[in-house]
Parts: sequence; C-alpha cells; structure tokens
Amino acid sequence: MTIVATPQSMLFEQPLQLQGGGVLRQYQLTFETYGELNAQRNNAVLICHALNASHHVAGVYANQDKSEGWWDNMVGPGKPVDTNRFFVIGVNNLGSCFGSTGPMHVNPDTGRVYGADFPVVTVEDWVTSQARLLDTLGITQLAAVMGGSLGGMQALSWSLQYPDRLRHAVVIASAPNLNAENIAFNEVARRAIATDPDFHGGHFYDHGVVPKRGLRIARMLGHITYLSDDVMNSKFGRMLQSGDVFRYSTQDIEFQIESYLRYQGDKFSEYFDANTYLLITRALDYFDPARDHHGNLRNALARAQAQFLLVSFTTDWRFAPARSREMVQALIANQRKVSYAEIDAPHGHDAFLLDDPRYVSLVRAYFDRISEEVSA
Amino acid sequence: MTIVATPQSMLFEQPLQLQGGGVLRQYQLTFETYGELNAQRNNAVLICHALNASHHVAGVYANQDKSEGWWDNMVGPGKPVDTNRFFVIGVNNLGSCFGSTGPMHVNPDTGRVYGADFPVVTVEDWVTSQARLLDTLGITQLAAVMGGSLGGMQALSWSLQYPDRLRHAVVIASAPNLNAENIAFNEVARRAIATDPDFHGGHFYDHGVVPKRGLRIARMLGHITYLSDDVMNSKFGRMLQSGDVFRYSTQDIEFQIESYLRYQGDKFSEYFDANTYLLITRALDYFDPARDHHGNLRNALARAQAQFLLVSFTTDWRFAPARSREMVQALIANQRKVSYAEIDAPHGHDAFLLDDPRYVSLVRAYFDRISEEVSA
Repeated sequence: MTIVATPQSMLFEQPLQLQGGGVLRQYQLTFETYGELNAQRNNAVLICHALNASHHVAGVYANQDKSEGWWDNMVGPGKPVDTNRFFVIGVNNLGSCFGSTGPMHVNPDTGRVYGADFPVVTVEDWVTSQARLLDTLGITQLAAVMGGSLGGMQALSWSLQYPDRLRHAVVIASAPNLNAENIAFNEVARRAIATDPDFHGGHFYDHGVVPKRGLRIARMLGHITYLSDDVMNSKFGRMLQSGDVFRYSTQDIEFQIESYLRYQGDKFSEYFDANTYLLITRALDYFDPARDHHGNLRNALARAQAQFLLVSFTTDWRFAPARSREMVQALIANQRKVSYAEIDAPHGHDAFLLDDPRYVSLVRAYFDRISEEVSA
Repeated sequence: MTIVATPQSMLFEQPLQLQGGGVLRQYQLTFETYGELNAQRNNAVLICHALNASHHVAGVYANQDKSEGWWDNMVGPGKPVDTNRFFVIGVNNLGSCFGSTGPMHVNPDTGRVYGADFPVVTVEDWVTSQARLLDTLGITQLAAVMGGSLGGMQALSWSLQYPDRLRHAVVIASAPNLNAENIAFNEVARRAIATDPDFHGGHFYDHGVVPKRGLRIARMLGHITYLSDDVMNSKFGRMLQSGDVFRYSTQDIEFQIESYLRYQGDKFSEYFDANTYLLITRALDYFDPARDHHGNLRNALARAQAQFLLVSFTTDWRFAPARSREMVQALIANQRKVSYAEIDAPHGHDAFLLDDPRYVSLVRAYFDRISEEVSA
C-alpha cells in the first residue's frame, strides 16, 4: 500500500526569536503526517530533512508521477519506520523553498519579498520551530527524532534543546560540526551563487531572474561530495559520453561524469532557491553544540537524555565515520544508551538515502524496539 | 648562492600537428635554464610544470621581490637537483599563459587573438614540443625528466614517446590517468569559467573583460583538493575570521578558511588566463597512456626504457598513492628499474612542492646517483 500524501500548512503568529539575532514576526510551517497518532500520543516520529529535501518524506502525491517522498524507502506502511505503528511527521525547515516561510515569501514588516533579508536561521531555530509545531499537534514527547546529514544534526540538537521531549534520537551520516573542508566546499558553492550577476545581492526576484549559473555550480560540486570515489569510478569511470573517440574539446561534454553533473546542476537550478542554498549551508557551518563548552563535546552532550542510534558509512568522506564516533564516545562518556553501526557501503554520503540491506534492517530493528516501548 | 634567472624564448616555424587534430603553424616556447651543459651534453634535466606553474622553476628575477621559482626549494646550486652539476631546463607549456604560445596570442592564420580557438593540446603534444626544444639545444638524451602532478604525467609520457631520450623519469604525486572524481572537479571548475558571462565563449579579450568570477571559483575549488583534510583542520579548523562570536551572515566571511580561499581565488583571477585553465584541465583529463592498450597499463608502459623514481604522499587524495602504485606495478611487470617512496606527509597533494625532509633527501640521493652516472 502506498500512502497518498497531503501537505498541510500552519501559521504561527507568535514571533520567533532566532539565534542569529533576527526575528520572524510570523511564519508558516509546511508539513506532512503519515499514520495515526495513538491514544497515548506517544508514537510520533519526527523526520528532519537535509539540504535540498522537504516535508515530503514518504508516499506520493495524487495523480503525480515520480512524486515519491525523499525517504519513501524508509518510511511507510510495513517499512522500517512503519506508519502502521508510528505517526510520522515531516516538516519543511524555515528558510527552505518548499512551503515553509522562506526568502521567496513576503516579509510582513516591509511588504517586500525577503530575498537576502531573510534572517539567518540555525539548526537550533529549526528545532525550536518544530517543537512549536508539535505543541499545536498536542505531542508532548516524541518516540523518536530521526535525520541524516543535516537532518541528523537536528536530531542531535533536539536531544540537547528538549531533552525530555524525545525518547530516541536517530542520527545518520552526520557530524557534531563541520570541519574546515566541509565549510570550504560550502563556501565555494555560496560564492558561485553570490557572484552570479543574476543574484543581485539576493534580491533577484525583483529583477525577474534566477542565478542559475551559480546554482548549477553549487549542485555539481555538492554531487561530487555526496558520492564516494569508488562509486564514481564504477558508475562513470572514464567512460565517454558518446562513441569511443575523444572529441578534443574544452567546453563540450566528453566524459559521462560531466554529462551527469551538468544534468544534475541544470535540474536543481530549475527548482531550488538561491537564498535558501546560502541559508541552509550556513546552518550547517554554524552547527556546533560543543562551541559553548570550549569545544568539549562530552560536556555539550551531557544534557541529552534520549537513547541514541547512530549510523555512519565507511565511504562517506563528507561526514566520515570518525565524526560519528566522536558523538558515540561523548555519549558513552555521559553514560547514555547508544547503538552505533558503521556500514561498509560503497555509496559515500548518499548511502543514507539508499537501500543497503544491513542499514535498512538495522533501522527496522531499532524502530521495532521503539514500537514495543511505546505500545507497552 | 641564488640563481638570477633569465627567461628565453624560441620561435618554431615548423608546424606542430597536435594529437587532437589541430595544428600550430608556428609557435614560441618560453624557457629558462640553470647551470651549464657539460661537454658530453648528458647532464640535462627537464622539469615539467603542472597546472598553474611555468618555466620559472628556480632562482629569482633581478630586482624583483618574491620572484622565487615554483620549485626553488628543489632546484638550484647545492639543492637536491643541483645546478652545479646539472643543466636544468624549465619550459612553459603550449597553451599556458606565461610566455609560450597560448590563447592570448595572435593566431597567425587569422590575425586575431586565439581565445577559445586555440587548439586542444595534450600531454603528448607538450612532450613533442619539449623534444623539439631539446633538439635546438643540441641535447640528444636527458639525464632525467622530472615533474609533479601533471608534470609527472609529462615525465611518464616522455618515457613512452622518446624511450631512448631520457635516462631517468621522476614522477611525483602523479597518476596514469585521472579518475572520475578528478574529472568531475575539473568539470565544475571549467563550467564556472565557461558560464561566467564575462567569458564570452572564450573570446573575452575582444570585450576587454576577464571572467574573474569563474576563475575565482575554479581556484578556490582547486585549493580544496590540493590540501588534505588534516592540514585544513590544523591550519584553519573552525577558527573565525575575527573575534569569537558569529556574525550570522550568509555572504560575509565568517571562518578563516573562507578568507583564505577567497584570497587565493582573487589573486589567481588577476593573473591566470581562463582559456588556459580550460586547456590545461583538459590535458589532465585526456592523459591516459593505457587507453590505446584497452586499459592495460602494463602493456602501455612496455615501451619505457628509462629508470624510474616515483613518489607519492599518503594524504594526497587528488593523486592518491594507489595511483602511483599502479604505475610501479606496471613498470615492475615490465622489469623496469623502479624506486618508489610513499611519504607519510600531512599536506595532501601540495606536499610535492613542500620541504618534507624525507622527500627532499630522497630526491637528493636519487639525483646524486644520476650525477655519478652521467659524469662517469
């Protein structure tokens, strides 16, 4: 059975004070839910999304081909996060471009589209806004918060901001902060966007243009870092785009990997918002719960009360297993209950979205256990 | 004693048929030499350069501060490649932008600047043009050809194109071809340049502009891949550019790594030619001596007669040690004499330009041996 998903929106009129100093006087969150909240209201699972995903986690939209949610392999009836047992919530993050209030919306204070004036949002701000949504849904405590990559950072932050509002945090292919190389890749992508003449300082909406050149470069670069060297070699290697002789050109496509990257860049530039890209990569850069503890992650995670599942993938060089191990060690040092798996998968960072059987069955077993807890 | 270097130029009026199908009807090579050619004319060492370097390998220019050659730590009087014993030649590659004929020069067939019409050049073409230069200098056989990265590819290609014209090939931090990830990074850089509105299809000279935005992005990205993750973390980590509080901005510099990359990008965009960047990255992409041998590197290297020194660096993820080992194994399978060192250096690909004492003393010892051979 496939879920037919229906996005919902909720307007929040209580101002949201943001970590970076800005305020959203009012804002809207777009979200989807799957399954039923049980009578005890304790079977809710919040799924947090990464850079370019959304609230559309699972299921399809009515009469819309290829509209599967971004984690539809993981969430649904009979799936590892089983919507026959859990009430699953996907929320589009503030500042994103898929429904929740973001840079392309009108700033109620000025009557103009926010554009580059949209305030900087952080992982912590997202978690705060998600908690308010749960308040309105009457959910006091989540069975679990789960996310991969930047979504995993939100799950971790939930355990620190609202220690008693979640039983489990599932943190996949993530890190306790970005290292210099990750910030560097984000910065190159941001510069490609911000120096595109069509960006107009972030107010391109007023000019009826979109900085597609910059978005393409950002996405091409992103894709390189999501894949492992191995999977690139096996999928593309040095295969040519057509025939088996070189065209000898500096600007035309020669290798298949070039065609793949250009296609991904073109597609992305058609639907993704440039200001959102800057905001979300900055949220990644800023996340660093150990910062207020002089870099001591153990002290930073002392607040957490949840039980944890962490998963990393051996070929993920963007969020390497070593970064997950830092979190595991800090949690163990705080005598928290932690399960950790390092999956020997070839797909790099993207592995968290794919169907590695060990990974999928591990998540299934973990959620089976949560299900027993909450229905007991 | 510091060498005072003097660039020379030589005009070649015999047309050069290029591998990609183009022809250079006439061309100029800019080069420098250090030391003296001995009476037997057997002490010449050719140094091949990588992407953004030049013929200016060693020494300084008279009355010019900070004008040290790019391998001045390696080449000079008393240095590992000792110009008291060797006659060292540095040549600027065709298509580059430091003196030899390139895209910013006038095409004698049209009277217009080449721009994007400069023909595609390959590693093999560079080697052919270097061999012609040696002909004019009266050098039949080189004591050694040496290069790092793309320069190492030229040294390898020398051993295949002119097996009896070199005694030794010194191939440092190099690879027998680029893998998909390397091509992918090159392609992102090329797209950043070619989609910069100031590129004008490669004929920006006619418009009095330079595609600096694209060059900056290309260089920032390049820098990330030249450094190891470790050295980035130890040099920059998550240190802020100023003070210890976040500014919370999506466009301003926040982290030191951002400042470093922007500075490198800005500097590069002031002096490097955009068409050259496309040409040289394409030469990297195309190099693949095993291609004519159904991918069999052993068969491809069977032609080589030189003795080899290969060096790789453990933290070099752009030209990883595994790629050097492929060459070593193929050479050994052909019963060639090969010395190979894998240096445990923290600096990533850039290590080949730096002063790791084990690396430097290894090269010194190897050239001491060559010196004994040629003076015997």
